[in-house]
Amino acid sequence: MAQNGSANGPQYNGIPAPNLDLPWPESPETITENLLRLTQLAENPRTKFIFSRLITHLHQFVEETSLTTEEWMTAINFLTRTGQICSPIRQEFILLSDVLGVSALVDGLNNPTVSGGTTSSVLGPFYTEDAPDVNIGDSIASEGKGEHMYVEGRVLDIHGKPVPNACIETWETDSEGFYDTQYSNRTRPDCRGKLRCDDQGRYGYRAVVPVAYAIPGDGPVGELLLHLNRHNMRPNHLHVSIEAPGYRELVTALYPQGDKWLSSDAVFGVKSSLVVGLKDIDDEEEARRRGFPKGKAFKLLQRDFVLVPSEEAEAVRQKFATERAKGVR
Amino acid sequence: MAQNGSANGPQYNGIPAPNLDLPWPESPETITENLLRLTQLAENPRTKFIFSRLITHLHQFVEETSLTTEEWMTAINFLTRTGQICSPIRQEFILLSDVLGVSALVDGLNNPTVSGGTTSSVLGPFYTEDAPDVNIGDSIASEGKGEHMYVEGRVLDIHGKPVPNACIETWETDSEGFYDTQYSNRTRPDCRGKLRCDDQGRYGYRAVVPVAYAIPGDGPVGELLLHLNRHNMRPNHLHVSIEAPGYRELVTALYPQGDKWLSSDAVFGVKSSLVVGLKDIDDEEEARRRGFPKGKAFKLLQRDFVLVPSEEAEAVRQKFATERAKGVR
Repeated sequence: MAQNGSANGPQYNGIPAPNLDLPWPESPETITENLLRLTQLAENPRTKFIFSRLITHLHQFVEETSLTTEEWMTAINFLTRTGQICSPIRQEFILLSDVLGVSALVDGLNNPTVSGGTTSSVLGPFYTEDAPDVNIGDSIASEGKGEHMYVEGRVLDIHGKPVPNACIETWETDSEGFYDTQYSNRTRPDCRGKLRCDDQGRYGYRAVVPVAYAIPGDGPVGELLLHLNRHNMRPNHLHVSIEAPGYRELVTALYPQGDKWLSSDAVFGVKSSLVVGLKDIDDEEEARRRGFPKGKAFKLLQRDFVLVPSEEAEAVRQKFATERAKGVR
Repeated sequence: MAQNGSANGPQYNGIPAPNLDLPWPESPETITENLLRLTQLAENPRTKFIFSRLITHLHQFVEETSLTTEEWMTAINFLTRTGQICSPIRQEFILLSDVLGVSALVDGLNNPTVSGGTTSSVLGPFYTEDAPDVNIGDSIASEGKGEHMYVEGRVLDIHGKPVPNACIETWETDSEGFYDTQYSNRTRPDCRGKLRCDDQGRYGYRAVVPVAYAIPGDGPVGELLLHLNRHNMRPNHLHVSIEAPGYRELVTALYPQGDKWLSSDAVFGVKSSLVVGLKDIDDEEEARRRGFPKGKAFKLLQRDFVLVPSEEAEAVRQKFATERAKGVR
């Protein structure tokens, strides 16, 4: 901010007036046309393309709806509040993208199904960087966080061969339907972990059965869902992301069957191939063998993941991208 | 946030799962289709219409550009930072709307030219509620804020008859190109005022010659303009908004001719009919008569404003809105 008219206020960015001889922006059509011509000043071709499409759609939306000044102001306030409620542990714009299906769309476009690879699912706003390293067989959840569940399987390539030493990150809710970051007294990560498969691609870890939960409803996105008469529930699920050199990173989730919100997930993450059955185990020996310290009942989730080679995945993505961009340049 | 799993975390909003039998969102097409069907759950027809258009354009934009996960994340971060830099005296989302031509578009759609009424212009982000009341002939700027300017004219209806006692709000930069709110040591409003026309529709006030200025460049919008290779300058102008019972509120601005940024205003506010000439007066008697305490040179800005009846303005707006909405429901 300027102080007594000093040079602390906004400054000219040094870019000259364009040599475009633009007509006065007297009509909606001219405003759009001028913006599209100005977009051609950008040096990067991708920037030009993205912004010419953005302006085209944004302006068409405003024109088709003849958006009123009041509605525009409501949108300005909504976006402002959405930004202001964000914090290091809350990302309301990702939540907005999620409930408008944009996250699922971006996920689908960037991770097209390739050669039998495991389908991706949305990352969601609860991923953190601080998942602790655990060993195969360890628990990612502290005792008392929920019903025991053991998750195991292999990481394979598209030919069915094991991918050795892939790195798995996994996170989930506790039995209350909360991620650790939703507790104001969080001192360390819980119900999340990072582990490395063995050289046969095998993994296994103790966890808890996740439960269905409401996405945050106390902010602008919660208000929006109420306004749209849409519920704010996600079916229970276990997040898994897998990285291995030479393969496309797989960000996905597994959705236990039977959840009442499975077919109307508020953020459009469920794919049929990601719905899994949990086996009921009721055997003390089995429980001990899996490392559960007490009890004999637990759920068993068995699931293999199939990774796609990076190059093949990118080639398929590019091919679809080129097809979709045709005719809109 | 939840505390020890108490009910302080997100809660179910009580809306049941929709009875829509939606297909799994396996493909981009299905995701869009599901969102559009869910939009039909909204009770308000205007909400349904706005959100079905919003989702259509948002999804088309993402698909046509095959937006990458990194680009999506850049957008999320951009929007978040735009919200977080907003404060009671800074509205970065309005600035974003301004530089993308959306504000000019919304202004044009809501205030179509009617029967010779004065053309509107963008409100901009520097309007405040606290402009002081001044009398005809008073100054809106404290002494020393810039070159003297006297602004005078009449407020008329579309038949050329005076509109008595209209309320005028006016605001402008000082000679440094800053609004009062841009000074961190602002203690009271300056270079802004509110006055009432007389019963013959006449108004007149002392001001300073505004100067061209840069819109804030130290936030996300400034970065965006650099990225787009666009300058961040606005030509000099005087904001005027006029209210009178029975007439459409006129939000406009006057743009003195000769400014080098006139034809490439960063926020698309200039219309040819709003470009005005300033007369050079160099006469001590004239200066005293206009209330200037010293000097003999000042600029004279003479301009009448024409208000449009509310009903007629709204009928024209509605007519265009109906035409534009045709075929997109």
